[in-house]
Amino acid sequence: MYLDTRELSSRDAYKLLIGSVVPRPIGWVSTVSADDVGNLAPFSFFMAATGNPPTVVLSTSFRDGEPKDTLRNVMEIPEFVLNVVSEDVQEAMNATSEEFPSDVDELMAAGLTAAPSSRVRPVRVAEAPINMECKVVQLVPVGDPTIGSTLIIGEVLAWHVRDDLFDAERMRIRLDQLRAVGRMAGDGYTRTRDQFDMIRPDPNYKGR
Amino acid sequence: MYLDTRELSSRDAYKLLIGSVVPRPIGWVSTVSADDVGNLAPFSFFMAATGNPPTVVLSTSFRDGEPKDTLRNVMEIPEFVLNVVSEDVQEAMNATSEEFPSDVDELMAAGLTAAPSSRVRPVRVAEAPINMECKVVQLVPVGDPTIGSTLIIGEVLAWHVRDDLFDAERMRIRLDQLRAVGRMAGDGYTRTRDQFDMIRPDPNYKGR
Repeated sequence: MYLDTRELSSRDAYKLLIGSVVPRPIGWVSTVSADDVGNLAPFSFFMAATGNPPTVVLSTSFRDGEPKDTLRNVMEIPEFVLNVVSEDVQEAMNATSEEFPSDVDELMAAGLTAAPSSRVRPVRVAEAPINMECKVVQLVPVGDPTIGSTLIIGEVLAWHVRDDLFDAERMRIRLDQLRAVGRMAGDGYTRTRDQFDMIRPDPNYKGR
Repeated sequence: MYLDTRELSSRDAYKLLIGSVVPRPIGWVSTVSADDVGNLAPFSFFMAATGNPPTVVLSTSFRDGEPKDTLRNVMEIPEFVLNVVSEDVQEAMNATSEEFPSDVDELMAAGLTAAPSSRVRPVRVAEAPINMECKVVQLVPVGDPTIGSTLIIGEVLAWHVRDDLFDAERMRIRLDQLRAVGRMAGDGYTRTRDQFDMIRPDPNYKGR
């Protein structure tokens, strides 16, 4: 089946895109406005960008001609916390995908617990297994300017990892126990219990 | 466990990053040099960025002070094909993660079949279940300039979807049958057979 983007509606192109870039990690992002109102929302247009320094990218957009709360907040206070979504918190994450009015903090509305951050102002979700405290380093507009999609590029300043998930000897996250949840298309998600290894063929590979 | 990035080696920060941003989709990217030598390499620092127009972001970097083949090629010929990685092609994808010399086309070396693209010069991997033909719209440096990490922002011009995976009536990919593979940390991958739905709470949500 060949589909030329010029012949697709923007809705159909979006559906093909989210069905082709899978599974997507979920960045559950807490921010705070200059007026000190918190916001918490999940994003799956989200990636790791480089390890030097550790850097992530989120994509957010306008809605009805105004930046969504996350984007507006990071324009005011250029910091955010990425909360990792595991099976334990998936229902709460889904509850925060609702479009609450801007003066409502989804974290409170979803019955979650705010924990203070160490290096940034937005709070962490205490129930999430991992939190990454980030500062915004750059905003990059992408796509149709009338839609206002914007890449939020952030540097990770600190990690909080639940003790049982941290392998201190090997300095790594225990991914067999994290039970991370990934995003598919529509209402779909995937669990990550069905893991396997493939050894890279390059004997000079040092990234492990 | 609290870990401040200032107290981590760059290797340890990288390991935490790839253990926290999971599961990651795999962009298996074909490019071509101005001299007409193909290149094929997998990336998991990869995201969907917006649907208007359909746009993706890949992050690549320098190696030993020179751009890696993918980055060098898109600087010469600003086009690429994203090949989706399913269980059928996971071993071939892994074979192409080897650092072959620049004059070797990994697609040939891995025994894969090149199929012509419709709107771009780089070829498609015929064995991949979905191919997205893309043009580069922007290159954005990120992180430490001496590492040379660069976001490649690309617009999707066309899709090729294996017939049995395309639901024409609902204009979507059959994700229960795609068997996409996601990237975890180290040598780890995850299958996506263990899917489930969560209905968004927002009655006004139109993105489905």
